[in-house]
Amino acid sequence: MENIVNREIIRIENNKMLEVEDSVVTEHAVTVKINQQEFVTMVCTPEYVEDMVVGYLASERIITSFDDIEDIWYQEKEGFVHIKTKRINPFYQQIQNKRYITSCCGMSRQGFVFANDALASKKMEDVHVRITPDDCFRLMKEMQQSAATFQKTGGVHNASLCDVNGVVLSRMDIGRHNALDKIYGYCLQNNISMQDKIIVFSGRISSEILLKVSKIGCEIVLSKSAPTELALQLAEQLGITTVGFIRQNTLNIYTHKERIILPEPTH
Amino acid sequence: MENIVNREIIRIENNKMLEVEDSVVTEHAVTVKINQQEFVTMVCTPEYVEDMVVGYLASERIITSFDDIEDIWYQEKEGFVHIKTKRINPFYQQIQNKRYITSCCGMSRQGFVFANDALASKKMEDVHVRITPDDCFRLMKEMQQSAATFQKTGGVHNASLCDVNGVVLSRMDIGRHNALDKIYGYCLQNNISMQDKIIVFSGRISSEILLKVSKIGCEIVLSKSAPTELALQLAEQLGITTVGFIRQNTLNIYTHKERIILPEPTH
Repeated sequence: MENIVNREIIRIENNKMLEVEDSVVTEHAVTVKINQQEFVTMVCTPEYVEDMVVGYLASERIITSFDDIEDIWYQEKEGFVHIKTKRINPFYQQIQNKRYITSCCGMSRQGFVFANDALASKKMEDVHVRITPDDCFRLMKEMQQSAATFQKTGGVHNASLCDVNGVVLSRMDIGRHNALDKIYGYCLQNNISMQDKIIVFSGRISSEILLKVSKIGCEIVLSKSAPTELALQLAEQLGITTVGFIRQNTLNIYTHKERIILPEPTH
Repeated sequence: MENIVNREIIRIENNKMLEVEDSVVTEHAVTVKINQQEFVTMVCTPEYVEDMVVGYLASERIITSFDDIEDIWYQEKEGFVHIKTKRINPFYQQIQNKRYITSCCGMSRQGFVFANDALASKKMEDVHVRITPDDCFRLMKEMQQSAATFQKTGGVHNASLCDVNGVVLSRMDIGRHNALDKIYGYCLQNNISMQDKIIVFSGRISSEILLKVSKIGCEIVLSKSAPTELALQLAEQLGITTVGFIRQNTLNIYTHKERIILPEPTH
């Protein structure tokens, strides 16, 4: 498993279009089986995976020391970590039956059965909205200007729903997914059409964020930050245009460039 | 509910110590009850909470439109959102019984029963390790230097286990919690004592990160980024020294300053 893969992308730099190779970080799903029973699926960078599972089980008090583990083995290709225990927290099964969503993200049963999820999500077949790189810079700036709390405390994520003319709605939250859920919930209650809309997001485009954008029904997602490889694979399948690393005069177009009005290529 | 609260902190700025007021972002736990049954607990910024719940349920396909909801009301003080449905996904209960941890964080049943958790976590009563602001700057720099992947792709979080002399172990992951679990798992397997150790982290100190540090058993956590108010309340109770916003020549000391060797105060 690689932590980083290379990918052909389009970079816009001072109004010039470049076709370049970029490094993108991977996400890898690992399912932990305790004494042959499925316990949890974690999405991670695929290195030191056994350490991560041991640390996780100890911090959850499923085990109290490494000595509680009789055997641990990693089926790398299949994405399983098998744990055989000598001793285990007698209540560990109950730990499985509660559902908590932390401030930094939502977790979702559907969100990670990728195959099912990709089927459930509707592929964006058409191009209802097209924007220029300058629109991307302008919308990112508008989103950031509407993000007063972030600037004051540095502790929250911001998302804006935009159309090509500007920001329609901005929401912030300490939880990345919450900001998008706040937008989605408002739009559902107020029958706001998503067809001409764009999501502008302050954080990284992970697979979950990409799926959230797809479920909301937007064709384009713009981010100041980096996408993951898994998010880009989903974006390709689901027909979503992803633009990342939107900074002063540069941005990267990762998928479905047909919605971006490009300048002439420069070699 | 406030999104931001003010807090007295100690700021170190070019070797001067200042007692200043700082804005800290809040975290708020909201439990969603569907037809009187507890469904999920979300930790969020306490605004537009009903929108967030509607958006979440729709993106999880628990409901298919806002019209599926007969009534929704927010018991703000108690932290409950009550949903009464007209129609609901018949499989919605099953959605509750799977456990997924996304790349951006771990979620933990224990992690959010704060009262229980604070009891289960051992309070750091003693001072085994003391460091200067210059140690903080140096350790942060060392952590960042060991973070090659982050610099290359901008997509991962980095954590280092340090002692006062420098970095002992560095791990990175697209998931904030995973990086800490990788460190914890390694230390458990190799009997590494935590008593003189310091966690240096690239991301925000949320309540979950703080609890993870407490479970690992470190007395000091250093971060380049901001803490949340809930994390700071837990840090106070659990006896953990939190230092945030470690930048060029400035840093903020939020809790348990007794482990930081301070310069003379300047007014």
